[in-house]
This record gives sequence, structure tokens and C-alpha cells, in this order.
Amino acid sequence: MTSTDNPRSSNDDTFRIGLLGHGTVGSAFAELLPFHADRVRLITGLRPELAGVMTRSRGSFDEILEASDLIVELIGGIEPARQYLLRAMREGRHVVTANKQLLSQHGEELWETARSQGVQLRFEGAVAGVVPVIRVLQESLSGATIDRVHGIVNGTTNFILTEMARTGMTFDQALAEAQRLGYAEADPKEDVDGSDAAAKMAILARLAFDTPVHLDQVTYEGIEHVQPDDLEYARDLGLELKLIGTAERIGDGLSVRVHPIFLYPGHPLASVHGPFNAVTVESEAITEITMSGPGAGGPQTASAVLGDVISAMIPPASTPPTTRELQIVKDVVSAFYLHLEVADEPGVLAQVAQVLALQGVSVKSVVQKGLGEQARLVMVAHPVLESRFAAAMDLIARLDVMRAPPRAIRVLEEQFG
Amino acid sequence: MTSTDNPRSSNDDTFRIGLLGHGTVGSAFAELLPFHADRVRLITGLRPELAGVMTRSRGSFDEILEASDLIVELIGGIEPARQYLLRAMREGRHVVTANKQLLSQHGEELWETARSQGVQLRFEGAVAGVVPVIRVLQESLSGATIDRVHGIVNGTTNFILTEMARTGMTFDQALAEAQRLGYAEADPKEDVDGSDAAAKMAILARLAFDTPVHLDQVTYEGIEHVQPDDLEYARDLGLELKLIGTAERIGDGLSVRVHPIFLYPGHPLASVHGPFNAVTVESEAITEITMSGPGAGGPQTASAVLGDVISAMIPPASTPPTTRELQIVKDVVSAFYLHLEVADEPGVLAQVAQVLALQGVSVKSVVQKGLGEQARLVMVAHPVLESRFAAAMDLIARLDVMRAPPRAIRVLEEQFG
Repeated sequence: MTSTDNPRSSNDDTFRIGLLGHGTVGSAFAELLPFHADRVRLITGLRPELAGVMTRSRGSFDEILEASDLIVELIGGIEPARQYLLRAMREGRHVVTANKQLLSQHGEELWETARSQGVQLRFEGAVAGVVPVIRVLQESLSGATIDRVHGIVNGTTNFILTEMARTGMTFDQALAEAQRLGYAEADPKEDVDGSDAAAKMAILARLAFDTPVHLDQVTYEGIEHVQPDDLEYARDLGLELKLIGTAERIGDGLSVRVHPIFLYPGHPLASVHGPFNAVTVESEAITEITMSGPGAGGPQTASAVLGDVISAMIPPASTPPTTRELQIVKDVVSAFYLHLEVADEPGVLAQVAQVLALQGVSVKSVVQKGLGEQARLVMVAHPVLESRFAAAMDLIARLDVMRAPPRAIRVLEEQFG
Repeated sequence: MTSTDNPRSSNDDTFRIGLLGHGTVGSAFAELLPFHADRVRLITGLRPELAGVMTRSRGSFDEILEASDLIVELIGGIEPARQYLLRAMREGRHVVTANKQLLSQHGEELWETARSQGVQLRFEGAVAGVVPVIRVLQESLSGATIDRVHGIVNGTTNFILTEMARTGMTFDQALAEAQRLGYAEADPKEDVDGSDAAAKMAILARLAFDTPVHLDQVTYEGIEHVQPDDLEYARDLGLELKLIGTAERIGDGLSVRVHPIFLYPGHPLASVHGPFNAVTVESEAITEITMSGPGAGGPQTASAVLGDVISAMIPPASTPPTTRELQIVKDVVSAFYLHLEVADEPGVLAQVAQVLALQGVSVKSVVQKGLGEQARLVMVAHPVLESRFAAAMDLIARLDVMRAPPRAIRVLEEQFG
């Protein structure tokens, strides 16, 4: 069923969205939607707009439901969110939510209602921010037999552990820093005690293993008791301490748990630092897939919610017509490594440097290596238009002092993480 | 449109799949399908089965088409694959393909046909093996404004570069090793010259930037000319050399290119080694998402194709009913780090070791640190049932020689990468 089946939008090209909740994520979504409305219309043929916004203290659910083609629930908590979603689906509306508490405790009731009503219930924003792990588990991996899911699904705790390891801070100091930077809430309890991650792991385990998993069945432990000493030990051994959620098949059973754990370097999750989230899915057929990205912030979660809304609007697996014709750019700016086998005589560097300068290529570093037949200049050039660099290479190749054609390889200059 | 709309499958609960091609991926798919048929039936309500297999030399396309609800094209090349897909869609069939050459040269014609016929054209297997980048670009990120896509989209060349860096081998030696291990084909030309990666980047660029991109518009360069010297330079500076595909917005234009490039450590793609693929998508709203996993092998690509087939069979965003009830396991096996603040006196280690041994906890390593009030034992224990370890901790906490409660943190023992 696509939105165009809905009589409510058959009169015009507007797709009406009822928004429940106007907190961090809700207000970010309300801002994002008009910004993308034109583009969404190009893709889907329908222009999304807010039919109304309801908060705990303001607005009527009945009125919003009546005026909407789809309901976005960002009000949080169990009730009345559960009743709102059930009613919306029973009245034929697709729904999008980011409510991990609700799904980890009443997921089966909600999913059953969606199935029996033939509507979509999407919830990418409930787990791992913009990392599209829900869709990948539900769709891409629906044909795979999954053995294990490992996840860093709470950005606050990953930030705190990263800071403790980096600076030697105590837990309390790192938490204060996280609060100062907006990575932790004023009341950080659910993040630091592991219960937020536990709710997310219950949802991931349900999808990965096709078995009912309730939040109460997830064992969890937080990071409040981690000491700087422990991080010092980790540093000495090259280990990384992470708060990891695990869902894995053990014999005929399933274990779902969250706790701090040391990882050896080389583990796909060991290099995930700061407020990032990442999930690794292991399966014999596919070995493993790892997905990583920023954890839940308002704009990131709102972006995941918008992705769900658009998916509910377009037919499945549709590649929309192109919406523009961008000029293909052939000449771009790159930094380069340059390897020159040169004659071992005075003035070589000066000749090469002059040619580079003529083409506007600026040198960042030079190393002279070897003697006689082994003499080499190895240089790194600052970013420059590739055509200019190529011209310099042509000229250098013609210098008498070259013993072999020059070799160049691009260098990606940006620093990450 | 879902499979149940198709009159062909309304008489029974069988979903008939016509398979074109029986090479590496085709035969892996033909093996995988019956293995998963029961599970797919639980999820979708329909039992998938092969309606027929056609190769270049054997079988009639007309007969296969007539007998099928969906066509899987794994025959490769441009013609007759293009005609087969067009005809299948025009006759109302969903299609799944892994044909990157075809999509990078005739994608618009195929996508337009899918849209006008209201059928699904899925192609996750065409790019990056099991890494679900197509679905994520088409669906999860349909609401995001993408600035750049960086990808390691050819596993053969990533294996060769990893081996060259690791061992000092020449390109020819590493290629021979890749062929010996089955990571490179007998004719590796399209892999090593960058043209395979170029076709994949054309497809990714089209989806990321909503603009037509033809293979001919992709600039590419291979890795045949990379010398052991260059890798030695990289090692000295901690750089990683990768064959990177890039699609990025530059002003009002788009650049799509493939070439070897040095990455600084910390770049999300720098730690992708061996025959793995990975793609990073950058967007202001979401910062970046990175997805990684094994590159295209027969079983991996077949698994991606099966995921596409199942997606075509189920209604969008459906969370299927649970298919089993796995027992939740609470007591699992873990390795532990153990931090004990102890009295600085003889016999302490012996007491602790005895308690651990009583519970079957075997010690892998011990370090004694500090003196007097700073005395500590830091140990790592081999994997043991957590209940046994907890019992040992309870006993240790009661020892007179303890100056503070013992602290324990799990250690993930597996070695990766």
C-alpha cells in the first residue's frame, strides 16, 4: 500500500504528516521537513507537509489523526504513545516512531497490528541514530542466518569511555564534559547504566533472530564503575574499552546483554570513537557487515525519521527519475605523493622545485633517499588542480636528471576522528 | 505491488523464480535458495522455488519468463541481459540483477521501465557484495543531501594492496597470490585497471546525486603501476594505500573517479583490509555513515541477490511474525580482566589464585603493580561461565587481604582482521 492508495491524499499532491511530540527530535524533524519538501516531491510526486503538531499539553490527537496521511510519533514513553500508534494503524495510517522503550516492551503488539492492518510501521530512528541497522536487518539480511550482533548503540557512553581513555579523566569528569558538549542529558541515568542500550539490543535481537525479545530479558551493566586505572591497563595492552551490546545464538538459545568489554585492536568496533554508534552483524554466509555513524542527536534522529517517512511514500525498490543534470567535473584538486628516481648530482632538487613552482605546485615535504643509482626524491605536494600537477609531471619527465619516469599517487589530506 | 498481486502465484503458495545465468554467482544462488526456502516461507507466506535455469547455451527465455513470478539475471554483459530484463519488466515481473556493467551503461532505460511498469528492479548484488549500500542510498538516505561518497568497491585490488603493504611483495607477486586464493580471476584486467570499480561508482553516484551518470563519465586509474617503494613510503608515514572510488559534489558539478590514494590513519576506510569492501557516505545532516563487509564472492553476492528476492516478496516495512521462540540464555562464557587492590604482603597472589582455581577460573596473565597502599594485582582470566567467575569474585571480595572491592571487566578474546 502506498500513500497514493489513501483517499485522503487523492485530491491534491500534498502528503499530510501528523507529528506527535515537539522535543529535541520532534522540533528537529519539524524544521527538516519543509527544507526537504521540494526534493521529496520530485522523488515521490507528493509534497509532504505538517498537518499538525501535538505535544503532551497541547493539541487533539483525534484532530491530528483525521488530518493526516501518516503519523510520526516522537512523544516518547509508553502511554499514551502506544495508544496513539495503535489507533493510527487501526485507522489505516502508516506510522513512523523512534520510541525504543515502547518497541522493546510492546513491539509484538505493534508489529502484529501493522501486519493485520496492512500499514507500515517504521522505526529506524529508534536504534543507532542514522546508522540504518533496522532496515538492513529487516530487508537486506532477511535471507541470512544471523549468528551474532555486536553493537555500540549508545553514543553518550562511547564518548565518555573515549574521553577517559584519551585524557585519564575519571568517569564523573568525562560525564560532565559530555554534558557540557551536549552529548549527555542533564539526567544521564539511562545512558550510563546501560538500560538505553538494552532497549535497543532487545529490538535488534528481535529482528536478527525472529524470536520475541522483551526488554526484561536483556541483562545489562553500565559504565559508572569504570576507573581510570582500567583504561590505563587497556592503553598498556592496546585494548579499547567499549560498552557493547551483544545478541547471539548460544546452542538452541539466545543471549542478549550489554556490558563494558575490552576489545583487541582490529575488531571492527575497536576503532569507533567519540559519540559514534556502530553495529556488526555476523553470519556464516556473509562473514560480517559493520555499519557506523554518529549516534542519536536531534538532527541525526530526525534525518532517520524523514528517511522512514519518504520510504513510506514511495513504492518499494523504486529508483526515482533523475531530478537534475549535474555537470561532470573532470579536473579536481588533489594532494600528491611524488616519487622521482634522479641522478645523484647537485642541483637536481632545484630543477625539480622550479618546474613544480612554475605550475603552482607547492611542496609540503621532501626526502632525499639513497645514493648513486639508488638516488630518489620523495615529495608530498599540497593540494593543486590535477591538470596543473599533470603538466608539472610532463615537464619533470623530460628533465635530463631523471633516471625513470616519475611516479605520483594521490594523498587524501583530511584528518578524521 | 507485492507478489500476491500476481495472478501467477494466486493458485498456490509457491513463488517461482526464473534464473538467468549459472556461473559463480548463479550456481551459488541456485544452491542457497532451497536451503532458505522454509524460512522465507515463514517470513513471506510464500515458498520460493526455481522455475527454471537458463544459460547462454541452454534454455528458452520465453518459457522461463512464462513460468516465473520474478526473474533473477546473473548472466552478465550487456546483451542479451538488457533485452531479457526489459521484456521481463514489460510483462509485469519484478527483476533482480547483479549486473554492474549493464546498470552503469543502460541504467536510466531500465529504471524508467521499472517505474512505468510498476515493478521492482533490485540490484544490491551489483555493488560491494553484501554491504547493503544500494538499499541505504535508495531508501535510508533518500531524505539526506549527500555531499560525497567514498568507496573501496573492489575486493581484489584491496587484497593486493594489503598484501603488498604487509609483505613487501611486488604487484605481480601479490596478484598471483590473489589468484591462488581465489580473490582474483584468471583475467584480472577489469579489477586491477579500475574499470570494475568505475562501473560501481557510476551506479553509486547516480543514486547519491539524483543525476544521470554513465560509465563513460567516470575517470579511472588502476593499481598496476604501484611499486613496493610506494608502500614502503606509506608504512614509514603510517599511511594506507587504497584504490578509492569517489563521487562528490564540486560547486554545481559532480566528479566521479577511481584511483589509488593514500589515506591517513583514522579515516574510516584506512582500516579496511584484505578482500573487504567499504563505503562511506558523507552528508552535512548525518556527518557520515560507513558500511563495510566482504567484497563480492559467489556466496556473498548470491546472499545479496536472495535478500533482494525476499524484499520483492514481502510488503514494505513489514516486521514478520516471530517464527520461533528461542530460550533466553542468561549465563554465558566470557574472559575477564580483574583488578584487585590488595595488601602488600606475601601469599596474597596464592590466596587469590586458590579461590579462582576452586571456581575453575584459569588465569592467563598476572601483573603486580605498585607498593604498599598502591599494591595491585591485575589479571586476565581465560573464558569461563560468568556464574563461576561471579562466585569467585564474591569469595575474593571477602579475603582479608583486599583493600577495596574487586573490579572485573569482560574481554572479547577473538582476534580479527
